[in-house]
Amino acid sequence: MDKKINIAIIGLGYWGPNLLRNFSSLSRCDVFYCCDSNQDALDKFLSQYPSTKFTTNYDAILNDRNVRAVAIATPVFTHFELAKKALLAGKHVFLEKPMASSVKECEELVKLAEERDLVLMIDHTFLFTGAIKKIKKLITNGELGDLHYFDSERINLGLLQKDINVIWDLASHDVSIINYLFEELRPVSVMATGGSYINKKFEEIAHIHIDFASGAIGAIHVSWLSPVKIRKILIGGSKKMIIYNDIEPSEKVKIYDKGVSINLEEETSQKPIYRSGDVYIPKIEETEALRSETEHFINCILDDENPLVDGHAGIKVVRILEASDQSLRTGQKIIL
Amino acid sequence: MDKKINIAIIGLGYWGPNLLRNFSSLSRCDVFYCCDSNQDALDKFLSQYPSTKFTTNYDAILNDRNVRAVAIATPVFTHFELAKKALLAGKHVFLEKPMASSVKECEELVKLAEERDLVLMIDHTFLFTGAIKKIKKLITNGELGDLHYFDSERINLGLLQKDINVIWDLASHDVSIINYLFEELRPVSVMATGGSYINKKFEEIAHIHIDFASGAIGAIHVSWLSPVKIRKILIGGSKKMIIYNDIEPSEKVKIYDKGVSINLEEETSQKPIYRSGDVYIPKIEETEALRSETEHFINCILDDENPLVDGHAGIKVVRILEASDQSLRTGQKIIL
Amino acid sequence: MDKKINIAIIGLGYWGPNLLRNFSSLSRCDVFYCCDSNQDALDKFLSQYPSTKFTTNYDAILNDRNVRAVAIATPVFTHFELAKKALLAGKHVFLEKPMASSVKECEELVKLAEERDLVLMIDHTFLFTGAIKKIKKLITNGELGDLHYFDSERINLGLLQKDINVIWDLASHDVSIINYLFEELRPVSVMATGGSYINKKFEEIAHIHIDFASGAIGAIHVSWLSPVKIRKILIGGSKKMIIYNDIEPSEKVKIYDKGVSINLEEETSQKPIYRSGDVYIPKIEETEALRSETEHFINCILDDENPLVDGHAGIKVVRILEASDQSLRTGQKIIL
Amino acid sequence: MDKKINIAIIGLGYWGPNLLRNFSSLSRCDVFYCCDSNQDALDKFLSQYPSTKFTTNYDAILNDRNVRAVAIATPVFTHFELAKKALLAGKHVFLEKPMASSVKECEELVKLAEERDLVLMIDHTFLFTGAIKKIKKLITNGELGDLHYFDSERINLGLLQKDINVIWDLASHDVSIINYLFEELRPVSVMATGGSYINKKFEEIAHIHIDFASGAIGAIHVSWLSPVKIRKILIGGSKKMIIYNDIEPSEKVKIYDKGVSINLEEETSQKPIYRSGDVYIPKIEETEALRSETEHFINCILDDENPLVDGHAGIKVVRILEASDQSLRTGQKIIL
Repeated sequence: MDKKINIAIIGLGYWGPNLLRNFSSLSRCDVFYCCDSNQDALDKFLSQYPSTKFTTNYDAILNDRNVRAVAIATPVFTHFELAKKALLAGKHVFLEKPMASSVKECEELVKLAEERDLVLMIDHTFLFTGAIKKIKKLITNGELGDLHYFDSERINLGLLQKDINVIWDLASHDVSIINYLFEELRPVSVMATGGSYINKKFEEIAHIHIDFASGAIGAIHVSWLSPVKIRKILIGGSKKMIIYNDIEPSEKVKIYDKGVSINLEEETSQKPIYRSGDVYIPKIEETEALRSETEHFINCILDDENPLVDGHAGIKVVRILEASDQSLRTGQKIIL
Repeated sequence: MDKKINIAIIGLGYWGPNLLRNFSSLSRCDVFYCCDSNQDALDKFLSQYPSTKFTTNYDAILNDRNVRAVAIATPVFTHFELAKKALLAGKHVFLEKPMASSVKECEELVKLAEERDLVLMIDHTFLFTGAIKKIKKLITNGELGDLHYFDSERINLGLLQKDINVIWDLASHDVSIINYLFEELRPVSVMATGGSYINKKFEEIAHIHIDFASGAIGAIHVSWLSPVKIRKILIGGSKKMIIYNDIEPSEKVKIYDKGVSINLEEETSQKPIYRSGDVYIPKIEETEALRSETEHFINCILDDENPLVDGHAGIKVVRILEASDQSLRTGQKIIL
Repeated sequence: MDKKINIAIIGLGYWGPNLLRNFSSLSRCDVFYCCDSNQDALDKFLSQYPSTKFTTNYDAILNDRNVRAVAIATPVFTHFELAKKALLAGKHVFLEKPMASSVKECEELVKLAEERDLVLMIDHTFLFTGAIKKIKKLITNGELGDLHYFDSERINLGLLQKDINVIWDLASHDVSIINYLFEELRPVSVMATGGSYINKKFEEIAHIHIDFASGAIGAIHVSWLSPVKIRKILIGGSKKMIIYNDIEPSEKVKIYDKGVSINLEEETSQKPIYRSGDVYIPKIEETEALRSETEHFINCILDDENPLVDGHAGIKVVRILEASDQSLRTGQKIIL
Repeated sequence: MDKKINIAIIGLGYWGPNLLRNFSSLSRCDVFYCCDSNQDALDKFLSQYPSTKFTTNYDAILNDRNVRAVAIATPVFTHFELAKKALLAGKHVFLEKPMASSVKECEELVKLAEERDLVLMIDHTFLFTGAIKKIKKLITNGELGDLHYFDSERINLGLLQKDINVIWDLASHDVSIINYLFEELRPVSVMATGGSYINKKFEEIAHIHIDFASGAIGAIHVSWLSPVKIRKILIGGSKKMIIYNDIEPSEKVKIYDKGVSINLEEETSQKPIYRSGDVYIPKIEETEALRSETEHFINCILDDENPLVDGHAGIKVVRILEASDQSLRTGQKIIL
């Protein structure tokens, strides 16, 4: 007998409709409910999803035993309450990034999920893209050698968020990516700078620096106030280097067989040797990341798989975001 | 009667030959001497400049009363001694950037020059490019509105320097540019991060953050370990924004009529308004910057003009480089 | 009283769904029917458009007096028969490009429409894009001066068509654009070259050259066999030049204040003078072209407007496509 | 005993100085003379090349038995007379492209050289670039499969020539490249179109089409009237495709593992199969092409090697240029 479950989508603002579209397309789940506190947001989807129930009543969903899981895509400050309630009601939870507003909240959610043996998966979609999967593989296979740096630029004009700064909005992507790619390294400190010129409350531009125990460094530049859109990550290793340009329609990932070395043992010769070889642009899998991700969540529930991005991964991201905020407030480097 | 002076070029390594070529082309000066401690460096230019004397003896030049000025293009750690001697010998000095190894040294040079009424000009060539001159004009005319941020990326593979880190090598350009463009603002603190993976002594990658009293921020990313060459500066103002891409053969400076605003007075409406208008790429003057710069130095001597980049400007650059180094060592934000 | 009409979409292959989506979104029309000979094509849209009837019976639609107009998006070789029948049935016709397989067929359709006073509009969508509208305005205002050349490159890998060559598929766009922009000039001859390497029947690569009476030239390069996607049009005038790069997400149209001139009256001085000024990237209207186009069709019917692209414009395109084919077959320049 | 020869550079206009610099740098030859009808052109180089004689007297050079070879870089219309005289005087000849003004002239030069057993090499520099050498190797190794098309775009603003059209100026490069790369194929016809808007005499824009016996096609677009500079060649084969972008400072050659195929044997299935694999950017040798080329010329003389680009190769280029001109005049396709 083929298994199938019912899920509910919570929040139909910017991201929720993508969850709705993807979960609806899966064969092993049905979108049983959609929920939003704003009736207008619901009305837009009524005719397109005739077999789904649309409601503003979250509790009713949690009380419905037909529903096994919820996918929450609401503002960050509501994540903790909504996810906690869902876990307490015995529902599996797919939770929009960033996981919650503090490490403390995240930890409580992980504890709840583990106690009840429920799947808690955080929606860091980038980790399901063909590009990041390819880069992860290259790093795991040792093709880059020792990892030296990660340098990300994620800037464009808008969209300013009303309740969080640009770090919680945009840098959460880069932090999840660096955590995933530099998984074997241990981050030891975080330093952040930034500025706010329009809303005067939340940083619209920020730079984050992460030091790793190995000496590797991560730098993340995010901005809502750039005239041009840039989505670029540079990764340097002792053997090879990568540029990942997400703006490119194709040819997103370029692998450079380039490097510099010095024979440090020969005291006399300190002249660097520059190596510049071929460049290679691998074919990247084009499946929509969110499609694989939502499918993976359903598999985790039905086939008892472990989520690629579980609550612990979610905590690690929030820990760095929290430290970044703290560094912004104090002007100090924050030890993790 | 037309005035004309003799000058001497000190150091024929990487940059010196450019000084030689440019000063030789000027009508109001003759390159009387070229000096380098390495005879081979001199030999390469003998036949091409038959009327110039080539020597390894710096003191002989300083003692020659025919010589009115020296242009020094030697390693940074020698700047102070060489320039000090020249000033004491009554010569005007054109000094390669960065001015010297410490603010203390720089201040002594300024004092010497002022006491003797000698021209002391620091070679920050970028300030003489058509691109920076154009951007300066736009800022001065108020076209950008209030200045929000300066963001520079100056990265490529190599050339690792043996005696200085990447900040003193590459970021000295960006610091001179930001000091010039954000002249009206006051830098209050500097924070820097970085890493060294090849030579294990001098940072090969670094990020510098400068906070200004107005709330504006400057960010500078420099690296010798990037697989790709990037030379890009973004400048954001309340009215317009600029991208200056120095890699572009033409179309280096793009001015975006873009911005974001919020009517903060109306408590109820906090929705940002995005403005996205035309883009304008001004025709940039194509004269070689070093040509105008060397000519300007000669004019300063002969016509009693004030150098665009005098010793005080040189100090301001070194102050930020020094603070960056200090921040790298201590992990702290340095108050200027 | 507000007027409103019913229309039918004929053909739900590649383009038809876009017509369906756009016509459905308009306030002054209802999509009453969708028709396709393939029931599977229809089934895909049933649930999404509950108030539309889906049928495989074209004649039934033509016999339904509730339907005032049809929008035909079927293979080219069917255009003539389907449009003719519709016009004979008294329906207004929105007809996918190219209009029909021959000038003769096109002329018959125009005659039928005019006799019955029906709107016959050809779907050359590019003429409704913000970019082309902007360029048309610049030309009309005389900003480019005398028009010298039009040079288009529209190449990528695929999608090979089964029933037409790359000229009828891709170059039909460029021919409609050049006809529109160079409206004041008269094309006098056409020459075409090309090759077929995969299907061995229909050209997969082609170059078309159009000579205008004024001496201006048009060159169109289309290909289904290029490893990279290029969508670029260069337009040269005596005063200014334009590059229109449709791949760019923004900054599609760049206007160059550049030119070359020779003072031909002074016999002695034949030296060209090169002028290279600023570049200007106008803000382009971002409305979906097909949205304005479908709305325009409805307005033509209800408000008695003249279609921007009527049957005569459609004929002019087909005339050049037909001449191109003839040139390919004979290796000769075809006089129009 | 090491052999060494004296050569003379004829013509110090635009290209001659590059020949002077390169031949002067070679160990197995000395530049004994430089010749130009314009004394000012000579004066510019006097001081830099003290051991070279500068003269306006060509005959004196030919009469000097110390001179073994001449390198001619004068306007095209003078090539035949100057080269003929040199060959008659027993000098080896390095002749600027295009070889001469007509096939007839070229053939006479080849005959003279062969009768006297003299080296006659045509300066098609592009064939000595790392990029073209790499592409040639890929084609020869069969990596591209069957060759389908060659498509070149060589356009920018200026420099209009006074005595030749844009075909003889710019397209001569592309014709030499296609002749070299498609060496195994036989060109059968040439068709050209173009226009002249500034000087009203010589085409400033032109398109050339070459049909090969195999069905392959070559297309060349050259212009002096483009607002942007493009130097791009696309080459399509049945297995792989190449884009060669000469504007790129690095990454000039990109090899695409892309293609389209149809199983033509299965009558029922005519659906094309698109293949899109990795992209590979080979490291390209960075030696100055003219350096290898001039060295090769000296080796041909001293070591009895055959020139890579001999008189016969020169004729093949001029034959296509001549046919292009003829096609421009007659509006006809010219059979070779």
